[in-house]
Amino acid sequence: MKPRLSVITIGVDDLDVSLRFFRDGLGLPTEGIIGQQFEHGSVAFFDLQHGVKLALYPRASIAHDAEVEQTSPSPTELTLGHNVGSAAEVDAVMSQAVAAGARLVKPAQKTFWGGYAGYFQDPDGHLWEVVYNTAFLPED
Amino acid sequence: MKPRLSVITIGVDDLDVSLRFFRDGLGLPTEGIIGQQFEHGSVAFFDLQHGVKLALYPRASIAHDAEVEQTSPSPTELTLGHNVGSAAEVDAVMSQAVAAGARLVKPAQKTFWGGYAGYFQDPDGHLWEVVYNTAFLPED
Repeated sequence: MKPRLSVITIGVDDLDVSLRFFRDGLGLPTEGIIGQQFEHGSVAFFDLQHGVKLALYPRASIAHDAEVEQTSPSPTELTLGHNVGSAAEVDAVMSQAVAAGARLVKPAQKTFWGGYAGYFQDPDGHLWEVVYNTAFLPED
Repeated sequence: MKPRLSVITIGVDDLDVSLRFFRDGLGLPTEGIIGQQFEHGSVAFFDLQHGVKLALYPRASIAHDAEVEQTSPSPTELTLGHNVGSAAEVDAVMSQAVAAGARLVKPAQKTFWGGYAGYFQDPDGHLWEVVYNTAFLPED
């Protein structure tokens, strides 16, 4: 297996609500919802850096597609880290997320490992961490 | 917010077990567990393509760090997509995962959208989809 993640898919309850949050609120690029012609096919992809994609897919569709039971939302299953180039940019992204309707979980603050970070939850309860880490700065 | 995911962190129950699965079973590159000097600091990072990192972090530590309640494992919260360059490579990765101790959830097969894919669960129940999609081939 090559060290590669192509698509990070997060389970959502209402595809329209989640799409609006990421597209309109956070400004992430997407062609919107596609695949409506298929049962359990509706999905929205966002193009991230270097060919990585974020996908929004209903939890019920994940269950159907993977042939598992649908399970309850559970915030401690994953966190999605968005690293930025400065503490001020952490504050800016946190503010943008909250303005878009995110729940502020942990205000941005100094971290135990020497960085600066905060957490918010998206409309489906997934934890996003906005991070300034001098040892892991974004390329762009 | 720029369209970027830097670190995809998945919650685990036993960091050693999960590390062995991804490092020894799947062959993903890592420096192993770091951060043991901090309470709730132990974490393992894997370097993926283009500076993207996969992190294994105990569910209890996610709860502590984000200041949320720890919640139950829930497979329909996310899926992690690993795209490959051929159907044969899907089969090979699925076999490698199962040999490493993954649970075979859905054997690789043709998909409704015209691709070829299968699902396995890692030791913590997270769903991984190994995908051959002619419209989204890996660069390497």
